Amino acid sequence: MILVTGAAGFIGSKVADKFNKLGFDTITIDNLSTGFIDNIPNKTIFINGNCGAKDIVNQLRKYPIEGIVHIAGQSSGEVSFEDPEYDLVANTLSTLHLLNFALERDIKKFVFASTMSVYGEIDILPVTEDTLTFPKSFYACGKLASENYLRIYSKLGIETTSLRLFNVYGPGQNMDNLKQGMLSIFLAQALKGDKIIVKGSGKRFRDFVYIDDVVDAFILSYFNKDYKGYESYNVCNESPVYVESMISDMLKILNKSTPIEFGENTPGDQFGIFGSNRKISNELGWMPKMNFEKGLKEMIKWALIKR
Amino acid sequence: MILVTGAAGFIGSKVADKFNKLGFDTITIDNLSTGFIDNIPNKTIFINGNCGAKDIVNQLRKYPIEGIVHIAGQSSGEVSFEDPEYDLVANTLSTLHLLNFALERDIKKFVFASTMSVYGEIDILPVTEDTLTFPKSFYACGKLASENYLRIYSKLGIETTSLRLFNVYGPGQNMDNLKQGMLSIFLAQALKGDKIIVKGSGKRFRDFVYIDDVVDAFILSYFNKDYKGYESYNVCNESPVYVESMISDMLKILNKSTPIEFGENTPGDQFGIFGSNRKISNELGWMPKMNFEKGLKEMIKWALIKR
Repeated sequence: MILVTGAAGFIGSKVADKFNKLGFDTITIDNLSTGFIDNIPNKTIFINGNCGAKDIVNQLRKYPIEGIVHIAGQSSGEVSFEDPEYDLVANTLSTLHLLNFALERDIKKFVFASTMSVYGEIDILPVTEDTLTFPKSFYACGKLASENYLRIYSKLGIETTSLRLFNVYGPGQNMDNLKQGMLSIFLAQALKGDKIIVKGSGKRFRDFVYIDDVVDAFILSYFNKDYKGYESYNVCNESPVYVESMISDMLKILNKSTPIEFGENTPGDQFGIFGSNRKISNELGWMPKMNFEKGLKEMIKWALIKR
Repeated sequence: MILVTGAAGFIGSKVADKFNKLGFDTITIDNLSTGFIDNIPNKTIFINGNCGAKDIVNQLRKYPIEGIVHIAGQSSGEVSFEDPEYDLVANTLSTLHLLNFALERDIKKFVFASTMSVYGEIDILPVTEDTLTFPKSFYACGKLASENYLRIYSKLGIETTSLRLFNVYGPGQNMDNLKQGMLSIFLAQALKGDKIIVKGSGKRFRDFVYIDDVVDAFILSYFNKDYKGYESYNVCNESPVYVESMISDMLKILNKSTPIEFGENTPGDQFGIFGSNRKISNELGWMPKMNFEKGLKEMIKWALIKR
């Protein structure tokens, strides 16, 4: 049985579902703070609570868990400024509890959902995993601290891996959360509202990676037979997409001309970033299968049907 | 009034005392877990408790605090493996509470005691502040997370600085704590016991920095008029001292031939490290005034009188 935390969320639900399809039993811990109970795959056992609470993690003891994929967490840089302490509990203490649980139960595999936010503002692009980290949000600080915990536990006998996810998008993304997910926010506004509100410059750029490719990265990391020690990997398409061109592409596909309003940056927001995926490609054989143009169409198609 | 946390400890007590001598009122928070109430300077107001507890930090509200030097914490890499969660509260959550307090009270100056442990095992020496960090202990992870918090708060208007202290030693060091302070541990064993127990190889090496020089680094950071943004600084002598030669020098000065026993490494211990102090020298005009040979003699003289 594999523990996939956060299976009520966008990424966690898809990863749990994939493990189920591969014939593995799965279990999840989710506090439903931003996820939805309907997202949790039917076959997945559900524990309602926080991974940052030890009594919740202790409930796992009665299950024959053989590996952990830790995806649950507070996933918004913006929100992390509203309550840094909750962020530390949700994104760092949670990892500590789960790693200790793995150690106690002799669980050998642990894959962690980290973030490109750990890099902060970097001049030399694309960022590689050897780039110095300057986290700009509490969210990024907490994720980076968790990564460092994983490195320690790899010395204690657990095969730990961090995936630094760039901007994940695709069908299934939470379209109601206007504080997380750049593409889903703009798409939701274009579909529902009379204007698109961009918090920050249109010249900012991001590296978008499609949900199915992200799921593949988790699966490859989890089943990696050639584990040599703790590593972190960029999960990205290695190509920058500008906010303004993303929005204009989106409106073109929708055949809309929603007005765009530019406002203040959210705190801790990076200006522009894209990553190199050479390391994960060389070491795990991962390559993104979906380019942004096609992925954007898939996402919009899904959103239109969902309405 | 300046808040110097941890003024019952070795470093905190000396820093608070120095501020007092410079004519500043001081206040401290200390939980007396490894420090001693007698270490707290008479002039320093004392709040007994944890900086990781919000109600303790809230007690500061009635004092006209104008700056913060955060030194309190769990200071042993070894101990951090016994209770990683306490370490996170003592060394990371504490920083968050104090930074939030600074923000709330419009306190503009915040200096933090970080550690050379953030680097971990590095091949290219001396380490500079641009060296990638691979923390090997929970202690180091927590300190690094705090550093990253400081960077964020510098963008919110607080002048924050981290000092990455190397192996601090000198008169006043806790000679009863056998889990913190390499030099004080060996000296205590040489003075009291029938053998010196070295946890790890004698070929390991460290960069020792004298307490008075460390106090100077805090004072210079605190009064830096030329603050340009968040920085971390190595505080070190830029010269490696080998464990075995340190012990033999020590025994020579003591005129003793205490037998040495080598045991297992403590968890998360670094093999060898020394730092470059060029950055703090260039930017803050700090230079170590005490070389190791002379400092060791001062330390031993003090320990012999203290007995």
